[in-house]
Amino acid sequence: MSIYFDNSATTQMDDKVFDYMRDFNERYYANPSALHRFGFLVEKEIKNAALDISNILHVDPSEIIWTSGGTESNNLALYGYAISHMKLGNHIITTKIEHPSVLNVCKMLQEIGFDISYLSVDETGHIDLKELEDKITDKTILVSIMYVNNEIGSIQEIGKIGELIKERNNRVAFHVDFVQGFGKIKINCKTEKIDMLSISSHKFYGPKGVGILYKNKNCRVNPMILGGGQQNGLRSGTLNTLGIVGTAFAAKSIYEDFDKEVNHLKELKNYLYKNLLDLNKKYNIIKINSRVDDGFAPHILSISFTGIKSEVMLHALDESSIFVSAGSACSSHEKHVSNTLSSIGLSRDLLDATIRVSFGKYNTVDEIDEFISTLEKLIPVLGKYK
Amino acid sequence: MSIYFDNSATTQMDDKVFDYMRDFNERYYANPSALHRFGFLVEKEIKNAALDISNILHVDPSEIIWTSGGTESNNLALYGYAISHMKLGNHIITTKIEHPSVLNVCKMLQEIGFDISYLSVDETGHIDLKELEDKITDKTILVSIMYVNNEIGSIQEIGKIGELIKERNNRVAFHVDFVQGFGKIKINCKTEKIDMLSISSHKFYGPKGVGILYKNKNCRVNPMILGGGQQNGLRSGTLNTLGIVGTAFAAKSIYEDFDKEVNHLKELKNYLYKNLLDLNKKYNIIKINSRVDDGFAPHILSISFTGIKSEVMLHALDESSIFVSAGSACSSHEKHVSNTLSSIGLSRDLLDATIRVSFGKYNTVDEIDEFISTLEKLIPVLGKYK
Repeated sequence: MSIYFDNSATTQMDDKVFDYMRDFNERYYANPSALHRFGFLVEKEIKNAALDISNILHVDPSEIIWTSGGTESNNLALYGYAISHMKLGNHIITTKIEHPSVLNVCKMLQEIGFDISYLSVDETGHIDLKELEDKITDKTILVSIMYVNNEIGSIQEIGKIGELIKERNNRVAFHVDFVQGFGKIKINCKTEKIDMLSISSHKFYGPKGVGILYKNKNCRVNPMILGGGQQNGLRSGTLNTLGIVGTAFAAKSIYEDFDKEVNHLKELKNYLYKNLLDLNKKYNIIKINSRVDDGFAPHILSISFTGIKSEVMLHALDESSIFVSAGSACSSHEKHVSNTLSSIGLSRDLLDATIRVSFGKYNTVDEIDEFISTLEKLIPVLGKYK
Repeated sequence: MSIYFDNSATTQMDDKVFDYMRDFNERYYANPSALHRFGFLVEKEIKNAALDISNILHVDPSEIIWTSGGTESNNLALYGYAISHMKLGNHIITTKIEHPSVLNVCKMLQEIGFDISYLSVDETGHIDLKELEDKITDKTILVSIMYVNNEIGSIQEIGKIGELIKERNNRVAFHVDFVQGFGKIKINCKTEKIDMLSISSHKFYGPKGVGILYKNKNCRVNPMILGGGQQNGLRSGTLNTLGIVGTAFAAKSIYEDFDKEVNHLKELKNYLYKNLLDLNKKYNIIKINSRVDDGFAPHILSISFTGIKSEVMLHALDESSIFVSAGSACSSHEKHVSNTLSSIGLSRDLLDATIRVSFGKYNTVDEIDEFISTLEKLIPVLGKYK
């Protein structure tokens, strides 16, 4: 049996989501843009899916845009907003620890004349609200900050940040990358003053290839993909009906069982954390980069092993059929120093000696026992290859 | 029982594709970008899917880009190519009868300084090769022509067009929107001199939300969606693994049974065509805008009824649970005069008196009999509401 501890990279799609999609395909296979009754029936189901999501986010269903994933959602939010507001200002604020789908759009915007401020984070991966406040100027049009960091799990104080941004300059839009937060954190976009929010379905047992961008109705973005004018022209292309209803089903399921889901993840994380501390008493080479308090997500634990390269550790675990990630798995096989890990000030030798364990609902305490006992076997051996 | 004659808008996903995807989800749910063995296994399956598609297109598997649908593929081809070649020239040639995902990108490119030539078509919906030849200049960088028109089914002579373009100016890239052609026409991108080709999975019983852009390896495009650098940086975002393997499965199935599939569609189309001619002997109000020769696709029949508005006909058929389309269903509920129908010179009164019947593999001859007998009841009644 293998142990899958890479749920932040992607989750296994829930069989119930599959069943729901298959049943839907039997009954509602028309194009929701079609003008016949059959099309209208499908369109109604798509509207219901938007309603389900909007209830979770506390927004209006008309504010839900369906995309092909978290990456497209982040692109549409940043590029779409920046391009349509460039006459109002050219300054954008983000952080040093965002996902590449935010950072690389910022880099591109910088090339075409935008001025980007990258906020630093402290050793726990949290931004300094004072620094943010100081950076907001009359030229600032957008602030983009992720809710939960994908590499170490640090949670930003989004409610406070939203408040601060709007107090400082009410015209500044606030975008939040919620990809790692959905299903792990309860959210209210209105009270937290979030204008745009990115979500990815496959991070919560839904299908890959489906994302959501919540966009406040007063917030204007330029579309990136043009065509038949679907979704009020903001995102053309035949709607991915099965993916959308599957996503809504998965989203409802996870928020209906919210406490149970999150407590299960917390239990796993706390158990691993405790066991790692015990293990470290013996070997004294383990540094845990995530904490178990409210400032961190319940499913991510970043662990450094002094003197053991992450690649080596990854492959050794792999041979025992335990699958974890080295840094973030979102960066398609590219070798690069993690922005997050260097931003929290991890020493040079630990930067490439760090793995990420990320839990999902199918993981068990027994799997952690197996993981710990495997580490116990591996550390003395791998430690020799310094 | 309802009769679904709107297969050009979308098809019902094949149950076998579902079964394949579900089985895949059990075994291969990791992120193909992950660095562990489980991720590599998935990556290998994705490569196999690209190989399946590349065999059908006669291209190299490395030339396959996965997108979220035909619309994104068309956007990436046109915008991505135009932006990365603007220094070489600003002239693009396309036709008046393209899909909105081509025409609207052209419109946008026009706004930022590109010069777009729109080729006209004759009354059968075919372009004039001489006009194309005359339009190609030293400033031309791209020609984009759809293989099969989505409203009347006319097939362009893509092989001859490819030849002509390359003879005239070898540096001009040739993009083909193949969305309505895949599974209905055998293709060879190399001999037909096609540099880029767009495909949409849900048009051939695959999942919605998956598209393909074949792009010749010597042809440079700028990415539109930035992020983790997947697909050689050309299209970031976690790969839609289930959708991709489902698409490859659906594609292989349809080309393995190619003759059977196409003959079935031809049989349906010929049978309806013949019956419409018979019906017209009685009423003399029917004009068929598609033909049954090799210049037309086997699955689309565009029919005008003098004096009966398409909306009225659509709803009357709807009440008999027969689902057809008014013009093209790709244009999300937008009321507009069809470019294709006006370009083939349809008279003003017929422009909004036209429906599209499009067949798929689940349709039967009996359904056509039912359709014809329904028309026979409807025509005398609806004809009164002139």
